[in-house]
Amino acid sequence: MAEVEQKLANGTARIDFATDPSRYRHWKLAVDGKVATLVLDVDEKGSLFAGYDLKLNSYDLGVDIELADAFERIRFEHPQVRVVLLRSGKPRVFCAGANIRMLAGASHAHKVNFCKFTNETRNAIEDASAGSGVRTICVISGTAAGGGYELALAADHIILVDDGSSSVSLPEVPLLAVLPGTGGLTRITDKRKVRRDRADSFCTTEEGIKGKRAAEWRLVDEITPHSQLEAVVAARAREFAGDAEQQGVGAALTPLARNLTADRRDYKYVSVAFDRAARVATITLRGPDSPPPPSAEAMVGHGAAFWPLEVARELDDAILDIRLNELDVAAIVFKSEGDPQTVLDYDLFLDRQAQHWLAREIRLKWKRVLKRIDLTSRSLVALIEPGSCFAGMLAEIVFAADRSYMLIGSRDEDNRPPARIILGGVNLSGTLAMSNGLDRLRTRFLGEPEAHDNARQAIGQALDARAAEALGLVTFALDDIDWDDEIRLFLEERASFSPDSLTGLESNLRFAGPETMETKIFARLTAWQNWIFQRSNATGETGALSRYGTGRKPEFDTRRT
Amino acid sequence: MAEVEQKLANGTARIDFATDPSRYRHWKLAVDGKVATLVLDVDEKGSLFAGYDLKLNSYDLGVDIELADAFERIRFEHPQVRVVLLRSGKPRVFCAGANIRMLAGASHAHKVNFCKFTNETRNAIEDASAGSGVRTICVISGTAAGGGYELALAADHIILVDDGSSSVSLPEVPLLAVLPGTGGLTRITDKRKVRRDRADSFCTTEEGIKGKRAAEWRLVDEITPHSQLEAVVAARAREFAGDAEQQGVGAALTPLARNLTADRRDYKYVSVAFDRAARVATITLRGPDSPPPPSAEAMVGHGAAFWPLEVARELDDAILDIRLNELDVAAIVFKSEGDPQTVLDYDLFLDRQAQHWLAREIRLKWKRVLKRIDLTSRSLVALIEPGSCFAGMLAEIVFAADRSYMLIGSRDEDNRPPARIILGGVNLSGTLAMSNGLDRLRTRFLGEPEAHDNARQAIGQALDARAAEALGLVTFALDDIDWDDEIRLFLEERASFSPDSLTGLESNLRFAGPETMETKIFARLTAWQNWIFQRSNATGETGALSRYGTGRKPEFDTRRT
Repeated sequence: MAEVEQKLANGTARIDFATDPSRYRHWKLAVDGKVATLVLDVDEKGSLFAGYDLKLNSYDLGVDIELADAFERIRFEHPQVRVVLLRSGKPRVFCAGANIRMLAGASHAHKVNFCKFTNETRNAIEDASAGSGVRTICVISGTAAGGGYELALAADHIILVDDGSSSVSLPEVPLLAVLPGTGGLTRITDKRKVRRDRADSFCTTEEGIKGKRAAEWRLVDEITPHSQLEAVVAARAREFAGDAEQQGVGAALTPLARNLTADRRDYKYVSVAFDRAARVATITLRGPDSPPPPSAEAMVGHGAAFWPLEVARELDDAILDIRLNELDVAAIVFKSEGDPQTVLDYDLFLDRQAQHWLAREIRLKWKRVLKRIDLTSRSLVALIEPGSCFAGMLAEIVFAADRSYMLIGSRDEDNRPPARIILGGVNLSGTLAMSNGLDRLRTRFLGEPEAHDNARQAIGQALDARAAEALGLVTFALDDIDWDDEIRLFLEERASFSPDSLTGLESNLRFAGPETMETKIFARLTAWQNWIFQRSNATGETGALSRYGTGRKPEFDTRRT
Repeated sequence: MAEVEQKLANGTARIDFATDPSRYRHWKLAVDGKVATLVLDVDEKGSLFAGYDLKLNSYDLGVDIELADAFERIRFEHPQVRVVLLRSGKPRVFCAGANIRMLAGASHAHKVNFCKFTNETRNAIEDASAGSGVRTICVISGTAAGGGYELALAADHIILVDDGSSSVSLPEVPLLAVLPGTGGLTRITDKRKVRRDRADSFCTTEEGIKGKRAAEWRLVDEITPHSQLEAVVAARAREFAGDAEQQGVGAALTPLARNLTADRRDYKYVSVAFDRAARVATITLRGPDSPPPPSAEAMVGHGAAFWPLEVARELDDAILDIRLNELDVAAIVFKSEGDPQTVLDYDLFLDRQAQHWLAREIRLKWKRVLKRIDLTSRSLVALIEPGSCFAGMLAEIVFAADRSYMLIGSRDEDNRPPARIILGGVNLSGTLAMSNGLDRLRTRFLGEPEAHDNARQAIGQALDARAAEALGLVTFALDDIDWDDEIRLFLEERASFSPDSLTGLESNLRFAGPETMETKIFARLTAWQNWIFQRSNATGETGALSRYGTGRKPEFDTRRT
């Protein structure tokens, strides 16, 4: 069984992404009508890995797993919430950002995947605002440094106390020789649209910016004296909460049933099988056991067991597990089992219930999970075989894959129906848009608008391999006679390539067309950060990250690149 | 005097970017009416650095310097040319791409700057099409591999011989563990809009793709049997040349006058002074000696000595020299000397002559030079002092800088006029748009549309330091009493930061707003390539780039990041 590379503080072998408020060590979630309050009060001794303390409300992946969970729960379990207040439970500090000792000690792969997850969490905060109308107000009393300010940048509104000491800062460049890589630079330029020379000044000023200038430069939305803080926060919360109707009672996100063995990870609708010799993880998704419920009320009754929600949560957990715990996996193979028409029926049900808060949240969850797949740096392969059910939302996985293979006809002694893909309106409606703002099919067919039209015409049809290939929906349609060898050779070849060059290749080919703030964060910003994370000026023995806190100054190679 | 890090084959200490067709060793330029033919016939023994041969029409920076020069000369010296035919002078090979032994031996900084220059050259080929209507047709008979195919991708039209062996390929990932980093991946997805799974297949197939499939997948525009090749090329050249009018006789790009000493580089209108202890290069631009000519004919009469053209060429040469030969320079300080109104008069002259081919080419040249500055990974600082002439096109340098400082009033015993900035229409017309497609002022004021309107209102006014600061055109306006200390402290601090983190910071802050194919190439693609260039799987002792040609297979660290 693969293990993470550093020693986990809790003595287990794998990072676990499942949690719930009763187990939080760093966040406190309180819900009062339309307003939820999330208080960051990091347990110094609650680090994910052994070897460092989480001082000054600094965070590691463990802290962020709780934050991500909290926002999921607010959306599913407390649908009446319209406003989230992000606050600190510690005096004089909002958050000191990512823990530097953790960063200095982490493997390159962990650092990169840690940043990716924290970026996804901040994007999810913005998605809660854009998709669900859950507005986040960040209240900064004390210092918000580096990743602490980057967390604030994900909010809709930032209130900074004007007390002569509370400040926002991005001290990464002067202090650590790395970038504000959790969206900071991009949100400064593209969300808050700070003038570039002011941004340059801000990002090279270790102590950051306070009070009036922070507001003038648009680094925060408002400042307030400490004496008026609570009144301002309450007023702003009321204002942002608006007079929207109460939404129904929530759906409790009950723990996922997981059965873990050395080479398998089985959930109810998702299984992961590891072939460690081949460096392949096969994820099989199972379709629903029964037709969709008759009504929205019945859907709410199913709660977290409602098939589209459960499979999304399981898939998300499986992907994160591979990303962080299974570094040696070169390719993820996606398969499915079930009746494609029933899968499509669920999509049609969700389409009909699009105005219902739970249906909307489930679609938004799928959108986030699919984006997580797009951003997973492993080769993604979809195998569409007899008995599979890639329809509607599940078909998006085929379009998220770097390659897809579809079997023509049936196999000997296999009485399952031949492979079929069924498109739904959901594949062409923008509902599940990628981070570039376009549907996967729109991105796929940028050069062939007629292919996009043809796909639309084919909605609802059960497409066999030749039809799917003709429509450009799959890469290759293969006969049974070629199938095994072709797939084996492809996977072997893929595993033989340099993992780094594949990461770079896939990161470029997956995102054609427009760029958005989100794609800029994951490409321009992240790629530069990854580069810097390898430079001796940051992570070498005399680099700034390594020397931080030792009392010794870093020594730099002064050559510019 | 700083020197390049490897031994130059010609025994000199610096890479020289000045050349002309009489000195070309690798390209042959022939002009016949509206059609220019550029034949790549690389001199194996003509490598820039010692230690490798340029086999199979592979290239290094020296080859690309000639290509860039050839396109400049076509535009300025042969304005009647409408079509450029890019061909190979060698049988069975079009171009094998960047020389692998050169890449394996080059320093990281050289590799990165080599790729940047070659990318700029390919963008200039596309700019010749978009800006000047000079269409490039690439004729591939034989193999176009890696950078060879990436060169073809810069053309408007690619003709591939269908002879069972001629092919296009991007074998970087399978063969070398690096990316097709000279725009290849981005042009595949965003220019030719190849379907992503086909692109994945293409980029992982070492031998590439031939004939009909190459056309079907849109990797080339047409295929032709060898027997019909010349007829097809001639027909296509006629078609692309169209029936446009002849343009006037050209302006010979005479050699730049340069006087080089240990710490200075003096041109006619540009001087570079190196303060090596401070790691600062100061570039001073001088305004014109006389008012603009009375007519377009007079402008043509001045030829390469026409002030806006000469200063652009000198500035370009100075920037390239710093980039490749002066790695230790942390900051470039821009100053100017002259009469700002006269500089603006030249802009107004060029505005009036906008339909004249030479005026258009000069503006396009400025656009390219300014983009080159935007992409130069050194801290860029503009100092606007008494006697300076940052007006119109020269003012763009202020807006390209990471920071700008403007002196309030005069200095004691300095009788030059106080610093003034004068905006011209050229600063707000899109004429000098950055690679993100927006003017520098538009990008600067993304968050303050009213500031953009105010700038427009101020066109033609001589703005003193306080006015320029109030309009948001400069970062800081300073009194004489603060000036020296502030500037010195800023430059010292800048030099104390990690050069890598500054590269990353500046690459992010300079490009707010939309992304284009060009910005994607320089951010997403380049940043990933730079990352990969440092990975042991590529450049380590057992990496693919190091092992290439040794007969030994690379050994990879199989962990995905």
